[in-house]
Amino acid sequence: MQIELKSPFDAHLHLRDGAMLETTVPASAEQFAGAIVMPNLQPPLTDRHTIDSYRARIEAIGGESFAPAMTLFLTPSHTPADIEALKGVISAVKLSPAGSTTHSEKGLHDLVNNHSFMAVLEAMEAMDLPLCVHGETGDFVLDREAAFAPTYRALARRFPKLRIVMEHLGSRALLPLLDEQPNLYATVTLHHLLLDLDALLGGMLRPECFCKPVIKTPADREALQKVVLDAHPKIFFGSDSAPHPQADKARGAAGIFSAPVVLPALAGFFEQHDALDRMQPFLSDRARDFYRLDLPDRTVRLKKDPWRVPVSYGGVTPLFSGERLIWRVVDGA
Amino acid sequence: MQIELKSPFDAHLHLRDGAMLETTVPASAEQFAGAIVMPNLQPPLTDRHTIDSYRARIEAIGGESFAPAMTLFLTPSHTPADIEALKGVISAVKLSPAGSTTHSEKGLHDLVNNHSFMAVLEAMEAMDLPLCVHGETGDFVLDREAAFAPTYRALARRFPKLRIVMEHLGSRALLPLLDEQPNLYATVTLHHLLLDLDALLGGMLRPECFCKPVIKTPADREALQKVVLDAHPKIFFGSDSAPHPQADKARGAAGIFSAPVVLPALAGFFEQHDALDRMQPFLSDRARDFYRLDLPDRTVRLKKDPWRVPVSYGGVTPLFSGERLIWRVVDGA
Repeated sequence: MQIELKSPFDAHLHLRDGAMLETTVPASAEQFAGAIVMPNLQPPLTDRHTIDSYRARIEAIGGESFAPAMTLFLTPSHTPADIEALKGVISAVKLSPAGSTTHSEKGLHDLVNNHSFMAVLEAMEAMDLPLCVHGETGDFVLDREAAFAPTYRALARRFPKLRIVMEHLGSRALLPLLDEQPNLYATVTLHHLLLDLDALLGGMLRPECFCKPVIKTPADREALQKVVLDAHPKIFFGSDSAPHPQADKARGAAGIFSAPVVLPALAGFFEQHDALDRMQPFLSDRARDFYRLDLPDRTVRLKKDPWRVPVSYGGVTPLFSGERLIWRVVDGA
Repeated sequence: MQIELKSPFDAHLHLRDGAMLETTVPASAEQFAGAIVMPNLQPPLTDRHTIDSYRARIEAIGGESFAPAMTLFLTPSHTPADIEALKGVISAVKLSPAGSTTHSEKGLHDLVNNHSFMAVLEAMEAMDLPLCVHGETGDFVLDREAAFAPTYRALARRFPKLRIVMEHLGSRALLPLLDEQPNLYATVTLHHLLLDLDALLGGMLRPECFCKPVIKTPADREALQKVVLDAHPKIFFGSDSAPHPQADKARGAAGIFSAPVVLPALAGFFEQHDALDRMQPFLSDRARDFYRLDLPDRTVRLKKDPWRVPVSYGGVTPLFSGERLIWRVVDGA
């Protein structure tokens, strides 16, 4: 028994930089033909030069079979002209409201009343350049995504032709927005699809399962599983794989390094629900259409060949560290 | 401005053993005239000999001004005669359902249908010996206390004269049981009273705020604050202070070391709610009456004298590590 995926695509990926690229790029390139590469480096990617040089560092490791689709980290100082000058350079603009996630301190405050932000979104709408949003407020940690719903709705209505992605959707409270607003889309991660707070807090505390937005309740997890298994046409896969050096993790940094286990774990999930045919559109077709990507033409194969996930990749503890997975990537050529 | 407390009592305390007693006993003895000392050592305290020798190790450090009230760790092999033989030795029996907490592997499975357990409870009821319960099921981590409500209710009804303490109550779903069942009581910790999951997960992950039962939602925290401020007559303070060596904490062990900050933090809470007069009954009188204790006659004084909580006590990170507290214990003689 074998699974064949045509040019799988990860629509939300943190590769980090420097020496860590030697770990992250191969882990993703083994399984994926490309990815939306998130820009929250330190300092974040806010101009053409930093974006182009980061792309080159990724390509130097990933080679021709892995296409990084670059993004801009939106800051309050960006103008419409800045965005227009990046036509053809970036695939999307990333919005991380201030304080919401790793290195988001430079993000935007008080979104909807921010005039320069509105002007930037107008320009993006005219360019048909998607906006990727980390949608969380400063409320109680389990309510932050739900509390962001009015902001998503307001943005979607004010810019009806701007395509907006609700990234790493973890709360069932946001799902109705997909059917309510024609221009809202969503990515779903491996961890929000398979895990709830039991994985993080139910036994021993497991920092490798800590991320923002946090994994939530069984009801949230099951609602996400349902829309993914029902092949919702506006949902596609984005891992939000986000490694941290062990020292940062020990200080409590948020981020799950899922990249090494994505396709094997998802194959197990879809097989368990007798839905292997839903993998291709979830893992490639819908994102490819959405981002209008010209991806490397690859076929990634998985077969049943149980393996144990290494406890560490380059010093980073991966999701499912030390656990046994049934499916294995055997050929990503 | 000064607060005077007469013989404060901690009705749920983990002092651990060995070298750690040199840290834990002074931290509690500075603030408290005594404590219900929990028996989940490794191996747990299951007979008179281990209980008496543990008491002696505590008293050797704490001296005459700190009275440890001992407890038995209930196992499936205990008989009514075992319990009766401990009359005058222990103040309560601790029940940790198997798997619920640190070193609870030897606890009881399938409580209500367990005949030897029922016989032990009958003996305790006849002796008027209280039962202290860690009430959690194996459900989703945020639902475990609420799901234990039917067990509390069944035990309370079957043994109407057995006084049962719902320990470290963290879910508002259990509060109605206090008024419904005459023989159900509860302890409330510092951390469940002041914190919710934001403290653990809202920013960086903070293992020093990880415990079982986990701190929960703002609604749970506020409901606990209300019953404590309303001076509910069946609720008294139990810290559940539960230190772990740093290496165990790094492996994800559950337990909050709150002992060093209890009275200063509670003074701030009660002052903020203009309820300093509620401290004495919450922190001593009700537990003293419940356990019929003859405590060392001490007056513990606090005054406003801001201090910064040390980042570590004997290698253990305390609750509020490095934070500033307004009230300080100035005289515990």
